[in-house]
Amino acid sequence: MKTKAYGAQASDKSLEPMDIERRPPGPHDVQIDIAFCGVCHSDLHTVRSEWGGTQYPCVPGHEIVGHISAVGDQVTGFKVGDTVGVGCMVDSCQHCGSCSEGLEQFCESGFVGTYNGKTPDAPGHTLGGYSQQVVVNDRFVLKIHHPEDQLAAVAPLLCAGITTYSPLRHWGAGPGKKVGVVGIGGLGHMGIKLAHAMGAHTVAFTTSESKRQDAHDLGADEVVISKNPEDMARHAGSFDFILNTVAASHDLDAYTRLLKRDGTLCLVGVPEHAHPSPNIGQLIFGRRAIAGSLIGGIAETQEMLDFCAEHGIVADIEMIPAQKIDEAYDRMQRSDVKYRFVIDNGSLAA
Amino acid sequence: MKTKAYGAQASDKSLEPMDIERRPPGPHDVQIDIAFCGVCHSDLHTVRSEWGGTQYPCVPGHEIVGHISAVGDQVTGFKVGDTVGVGCMVDSCQHCGSCSEGLEQFCESGFVGTYNGKTPDAPGHTLGGYSQQVVVNDRFVLKIHHPEDQLAAVAPLLCAGITTYSPLRHWGAGPGKKVGVVGIGGLGHMGIKLAHAMGAHTVAFTTSESKRQDAHDLGADEVVISKNPEDMARHAGSFDFILNTVAASHDLDAYTRLLKRDGTLCLVGVPEHAHPSPNIGQLIFGRRAIAGSLIGGIAETQEMLDFCAEHGIVADIEMIPAQKIDEAYDRMQRSDVKYRFVIDNGSLAA
Repeated sequence: MKTKAYGAQASDKSLEPMDIERRPPGPHDVQIDIAFCGVCHSDLHTVRSEWGGTQYPCVPGHEIVGHISAVGDQVTGFKVGDTVGVGCMVDSCQHCGSCSEGLEQFCESGFVGTYNGKTPDAPGHTLGGYSQQVVVNDRFVLKIHHPEDQLAAVAPLLCAGITTYSPLRHWGAGPGKKVGVVGIGGLGHMGIKLAHAMGAHTVAFTTSESKRQDAHDLGADEVVISKNPEDMARHAGSFDFILNTVAASHDLDAYTRLLKRDGTLCLVGVPEHAHPSPNIGQLIFGRRAIAGSLIGGIAETQEMLDFCAEHGIVADIEMIPAQKIDEAYDRMQRSDVKYRFVIDNGSLAA
Repeated sequence: MKTKAYGAQASDKSLEPMDIERRPPGPHDVQIDIAFCGVCHSDLHTVRSEWGGTQYPCVPGHEIVGHISAVGDQVTGFKVGDTVGVGCMVDSCQHCGSCSEGLEQFCESGFVGTYNGKTPDAPGHTLGGYSQQVVVNDRFVLKIHHPEDQLAAVAPLLCAGITTYSPLRHWGAGPGKKVGVVGIGGLGHMGIKLAHAMGAHTVAFTTSESKRQDAHDLGADEVVISKNPEDMARHAGSFDFILNTVAASHDLDAYTRLLKRDGTLCLVGVPEHAHPSPNIGQLIFGRRAIAGSLIGGIAETQEMLDFCAEHGIVADIEMIPAQKIDEAYDRMQRSDVKYRFVIDNGSLAA
């Protein structure tokens, strides 16, 4: 089954229209007509093979929303016409300890990424959501209960949403807790919305005074300009949890010293150049921790989508046709987007 | 009240005999005739002002055991003749959140260290256990239930014991858990004994093949030579918790990659030169954490002493007279001690 897509033929090539092959739905598969697909920094890193190991042609996209156009004969949870989403994973071993606990992102055999993952389907690696259709095992398909007119803005929840929701839940963000969110970009803007909706006293950290009002509008109870040492010092030892969405190399000590005893600074981005080595004394004198978190499991992703539908949460997006993807990548690299580009996959028919 | 002690008059001076003043016991005070005092690396760092801020004369020592020679009239929990201990703390605010939770080591006003801490007593800073007597608020005095002939070997429990016991308990070392202990010195040898006694599958890490049998004798179920990459690789992703007692700068990634999902690498020593910056990807892909831990609270220290008495656990020690302290410091710096020097405070009368 041929479907139109947008992808790159090599690391130094721009994305271009291409026809790709999708497998016919097997007994447990769901075939989705993709309506919208969010644009994640990982898409850009992978297309350009900045992390190495990219296989071409590369069709990125793992913030997929759309409608079911066919289901396999063993599929019981979904039917044609359902509004659904697919995130960063399309498969995993489904039987290891992590998979059994609903933490497929930590599958001991490695999960199958929505793009650039290993698959028996042509061309031997998975192709993502910058395409008209995708066929996915039903265990990795999520139900969407948001109003249909919000669908484009739901797409980023599938990666940016779950990547921030999961650590906020894991480390207990909620009423009575003071939670920080560092960075106000694609991930950070979701972190602020989610922490606020969970009932935590939410503090946004940004280097830019110009983002102060935006951060309040997103739901931050307080905004701290992280370049201002006095502003930072006022919050010393006061945070239960800080979610750090900034992947660029920076001083982590500035945040560990803001944690209470037993507080955790959680990182969700791998820096290209290492952060300065953190001050271990600040961990010891306060039993603090620096931790990492990776997207979230499938059950938790469904929980997040349901939570967002209930609380009226979607991403703030700028819609683009697939043909504008290069320009969107350039602007994303300059953080010139509030806060996530989403491709209108209808544009692929053009 | 004059008492004989061993201390330094300046950072570049050797320790020497001196007479110091102890306050008369107040209503809530306990006066202790010190029998033995363990020798901790912190003693050496402080005497030489290697961390800065040392006040002189400096009398170190915070692994104190002895017998009560007087009690204040409001003291109800202790009586003359009781065998007791004093660790790293002799006071704290006793009313902040941390103190209320029994975590005086994280007192929000800062705990009063057993030496070089602020006190109204002469000479304005606390003087430690390299002395014949000490007077301590009864809330910071611990009961010792070990047999009297083990008393010298109990002394190191007051710092090395609690510094390893507290994180092992906090992070759930016990049956069904695989726990690593990095470094087989004063702290590490206690960590191995304690993790083993708690029922964890205990793995000792050492750079030195020559310590393999010793580590087994201390209670390690397995010993890994950390310089051997193949030996290390066999344990990848398998540890619930690793207690790292090595303060010298080293590669933490070698240990974070041995953690299971949600595992923690806990550091208890501040390196003089920063560790190489840890690989954040290894934290993210496994939701792992690097944390710190500081001694333990008073209630937990009592729990540790009771646990050790019940399980017949003491430190492995080499007894010295106070007059040999310089030589002991030199040997301690070369890790030439199995595993803790303890001063026989009877030698101070000489």
